[in-house]
Amino acid sequence: EAMATSEPRATEEEQDPNAANLRPQSGTYEYAWMHGCTRKLGMKICGFLQKNNSLEERGRLAGQKNLLSCDNSDRDSRYRRTETDFSNLFARDLLPAKNGEEPTIQFLLEVVEILTNYIKKTFDRSTKVLDFHHPHQLLEGMEGFNLELSDQPESLEQILVDCRDTLKYGIRTGHPRFFNQLSSGLDIIGLAGEWLTSTANTNMFTYEIAPVFVLMEQLTLKKMREMIGWPGGEGDGLFSPVTGGAISNMYSVMIARYKYFPEVKTKGMSAAPRLVLFTSEHSHYSIKKAGAALGFGTDNVILLSTDERGRVIPADLEAKIIDAKQKGYVPLFVNATAGSTVYGAFDPINEIADICEKYNLWLHVDGAWGGGLLMSRKHRHKLNGVERANSVTWNPHKMMGVPLQCSAILVREKGILAGCNSMCAGYLFQPDKQYDVTYDTGDKAIQCGRHVDIFKFWLMWKAKGTIGFEQHIDKCLDLSQYLYNKIKNREGFQMVFDGVPQHTNVCFWYIPPSLRGMPDSDERREKLHRVAPKIKAMMMESGTTMVGYQPQGNKVNFFRMVVSNPAATQSDIDFLIDEIERMGQDL
Amino acid sequence: EAMATSEPRATEEEQDPNAANLRPQSGTYEYAWMHGCTRKLGMKICGFLQKNNSLEERGRLAGQKNLLSCDNSDRDSRYRRTETDFSNLFARDLLPAKNGEEPTIQFLLEVVEILTNYIKKTFDRSTKVLDFHHPHQLLEGMEGFNLELSDQPESLEQILVDCRDTLKYGIRTGHPRFFNQLSSGLDIIGLAGEWLTSTANTNMFTYEIAPVFVLMEQLTLKKMREMIGWPGGEGDGLFSPVTGGAISNMYSVMIARYKYFPEVKTKGMSAAPRLVLFTSEHSHYSIKKAGAALGFGTDNVILLSTDERGRVIPADLEAKIIDAKQKGYVPLFVNATAGSTVYGAFDPINEIADICEKYNLWLHVDGAWGGGLLMSRKHRHKLNGVERANSVTWNPHKMMGVPLQCSAILVREKGILAGCNSMCAGYLFQPDKQYDVTYDTGDKAIQCGRHVDIFKFWLMWKAKGTIGFEQHIDKCLDLSQYLYNKIKNREGFQMVFDGVPQHTNVCFWYIPPSLRGMPDSDERREKLHRVAPKIKAMMMESGTTMVGYQPQGNKVNFFRMVVSNPAATQSDIDFLIDEIERMGQDL
Repeated sequence: EAMATSEPRATEEEQDPNAANLRPQSGTYEYAWMHGCTRKLGMKICGFLQKNNSLEERGRLAGQKNLLSCDNSDRDSRYRRTETDFSNLFARDLLPAKNGEEPTIQFLLEVVEILTNYIKKTFDRSTKVLDFHHPHQLLEGMEGFNLELSDQPESLEQILVDCRDTLKYGIRTGHPRFFNQLSSGLDIIGLAGEWLTSTANTNMFTYEIAPVFVLMEQLTLKKMREMIGWPGGEGDGLFSPVTGGAISNMYSVMIARYKYFPEVKTKGMSAAPRLVLFTSEHSHYSIKKAGAALGFGTDNVILLSTDERGRVIPADLEAKIIDAKQKGYVPLFVNATAGSTVYGAFDPINEIADICEKYNLWLHVDGAWGGGLLMSRKHRHKLNGVERANSVTWNPHKMMGVPLQCSAILVREKGILAGCNSMCAGYLFQPDKQYDVTYDTGDKAIQCGRHVDIFKFWLMWKAKGTIGFEQHIDKCLDLSQYLYNKIKNREGFQMVFDGVPQHTNVCFWYIPPSLRGMPDSDERREKLHRVAPKIKAMMMESGTTMVGYQPQGNKVNFFRMVVSNPAATQSDIDFLIDEIERMGQDL
Repeated sequence: EAMATSEPRATEEEQDPNAANLRPQSGTYEYAWMHGCTRKLGMKICGFLQKNNSLEERGRLAGQKNLLSCDNSDRDSRYRRTETDFSNLFARDLLPAKNGEEPTIQFLLEVVEILTNYIKKTFDRSTKVLDFHHPHQLLEGMEGFNLELSDQPESLEQILVDCRDTLKYGIRTGHPRFFNQLSSGLDIIGLAGEWLTSTANTNMFTYEIAPVFVLMEQLTLKKMREMIGWPGGEGDGLFSPVTGGAISNMYSVMIARYKYFPEVKTKGMSAAPRLVLFTSEHSHYSIKKAGAALGFGTDNVILLSTDERGRVIPADLEAKIIDAKQKGYVPLFVNATAGSTVYGAFDPINEIADICEKYNLWLHVDGAWGGGLLMSRKHRHKLNGVERANSVTWNPHKMMGVPLQCSAILVREKGILAGCNSMCAGYLFQPDKQYDVTYDTGDKAIQCGRHVDIFKFWLMWKAKGTIGFEQHIDKCLDLSQYLYNKIKNREGFQMVFDGVPQHTNVCFWYIPPSLRGMPDSDERREKLHRVAPKIKAMMMESGTTMVGYQPQGNKVNFFRMVVSNPAATQSDIDFLIDEIERMGQDL
């Protein structure tokens, strides 16, 4: 039984005699809260009013102009929010304005009504994943929705319309059929955590202004280090404000450089020999970006060959280390990927760690996508050897369903993060405080302050327990295996690589009937390359589902399915397959 | 008339016969919404029920076990949320669980009730700014509040308690008497924007998954570039996920390097000569951090001397450029600060720009703190010359009251940001999409995805208009001048520098009576150095107000007052002065 929508219906309103000007009396404060209630509650109240037949009560309840109106049909009677309430209110009327409490609460509850309606629809398979519009369409302005900013304020009524429209023209990343990104789903506890975090509106840089959050971060990082397997959970780390793990990976390179060549901090890269970094050809491009940013140069980020499943070949790493040394370069850093972006591949960490030990290199494990599997007793073996890493990136906002952004860099050696980044700015970190200033962690970060990314994650951990995360991860991996089993021998589908997926990534081509008989040739490859983009475009136009595609190496465009949304079920997987077949059959 | 608190009162509940087991019937969905209403609304409903004297209705209204209960005293009768509703509910019962809609909405409305209560109290001067506890106290666990994470889930009841406690032991950064940070205040529109942003839970890296937000960012950045004065608002930029402007400043250094030495991107710093950067000794330490991170080395970040007001002396810049060149270094980049962290100083941009043009250097303006003054016709002259900058950092989350985080890097030359950072990862940015892919901006950033920081700012701009920001800024600067006028000749106060503050920063010592007669000496300086920390500690213990202090150069600890909170009034300034005098009189 879906809730009736709460959009005002102007015509009804005009016809409704109860919608007339019932001006607010004094003492109407309490009714402001009713904005948070549905029209069904309104109905109930209307019901009482009708029973009581007390106009006085009715007038008092209506309180605000047009706040409530009833009609005689029980089925149609409803609590109606009247937009006119906000048409003469502006931001300046909200707190801290005098008498701003009432409009503030009204406005926020109205926003919450918009948000809760959005949340309910997000989980409803009868709604679309998106309502696609081209950039020029949105820029030209949809009806009532204008992106332009102006000198003069707009009414709160318009602001509420803007909020609705922003959601309307956006993407429902929590929809059970949204499979487009590594981050998907809409965790209710995490969402509550985000609402609280933004209400607290503080920043992580000192204990003084974020006492609870600083301690939560400390305890949570320790717990994560325990799961990695570092003795006693000792070590260091922080949550870095970024959605892709890229800054966390950049930290790892900076720390490695500081460990081996601390003088670079003060003297620059000219104080170091020509350093090289190693990472998989399948790894996330953030290692290359870090190489460019930090002054190594992308040419000095050496890409490692992989097997057919996208896993680094350890012998190739050793050969390239030896080669680099022979050419006069100094190998510094190896990135092992735990869960690659496209294939979901796990590099063999133990074998890579052996080589790093042999050549005295820093070992970083990029578990941005795959780190979550450490929570699963069934799947954590895929990260065997992670305890030998010097640093680990792990993004709970990916596989663990934490709202964006939540990315951790974890470091085995204590103190090196601060050593690498601290500038000891006296105006920020005063040693003469009344509390233990070792909790002022701001100087460890490359940035000054940091957004509070810990609370939602901490709250989710409390609410789910470790076993809750484990169940979520196991379920997503089961679903991927379901998809794999379903399409591996299905006509019209071809796997990009064989074997049960290591992570939730399932990579496949859809071969339209017109290409099925055709022998491999440049022409077929070119045609196949265009299939996934065409199907994706149709999906977005129809708004029924979303899944990503990309080429990789010499492989033409293929679909990459990923599952991280706890709302997804086997029926959604079935739906996706059906949609691809339906849209692709005539290509 | 403050709202009554909504804490359940166990004793009352036990005595209340209405609190007995009224088990939920089917069709009780609508009552879930009542959790969002105050007990006063509940009172009203109880009133009706009593009038109707209809037990059946009453039972139906109660719906959930203990959801509502009434008593006979009109004054004490109230809508009572009963915590037991949530004691048998867990995260797994929320959406996407079957029948999860009702508990989801209940839970979120309960959270919103906690948050709206917090918001109301934040603006209430009779509440404390903070309730201070030492780290060990919070770690040992306060009553009912335990930070530790466990394997098993906790009930939603406990989660709600955790939410309340997290706010209870935190800091009210929106309180009218919180003056501790450059970012303060709690903007209701911005807050609504954050709630919506976290509900949308997407990320900025492609138009595909953030169509509306990508366009909002584009339009807002253009508007900001217009205010800077770049012709037609042309140029480039992005909002970088950071709370201190440090990453934005780091971008500026990277872009400058790419402009003059593009080969560094691929070959590393060894492809460039020995580059030096210039910034004020009063500037934010992020320039030094960027120097360390990007491979320049902090020794190659040359600090510029300032006048007594903390403004860079242009002649000193030119002398140091000449000196560096003579020593064989290559000057690359000059940072001019618009609003320094401690003094609020504005470097003379036009004179610095002349020198940069003469020596062909990149000019960056760090307007993280002072950029907001561009919104004020009265104060924007302090940034005269900013239109000559190659890049500008501007943090709307500071002077403009936007919730954390919201920091922009703006670049005059179009395309250079992408040139500097793009890696063209095929798996992220597909050229064969059905829409105009120039809107896929992810590759411009050093990180992969980016948190959506634009919406709250865009929404605030809509709701306030440019004139709303102008009024906010003018008011804060007026308040600072009020403080300055009040203390400049007041006994026991001594200004750190003379003259009306350029920004809202007012820097001063409080001299306790015991030190007033004492001639300047090391002993007096040491004693004075301890005064501000002692007063600050007392403030935090009593929780009445918060203001920052720090030493600067050879100046011992002094208070730095800043005003960015629109809730602050002259009475709050008066209160601060009184508190300092009261706490400091016996030191």
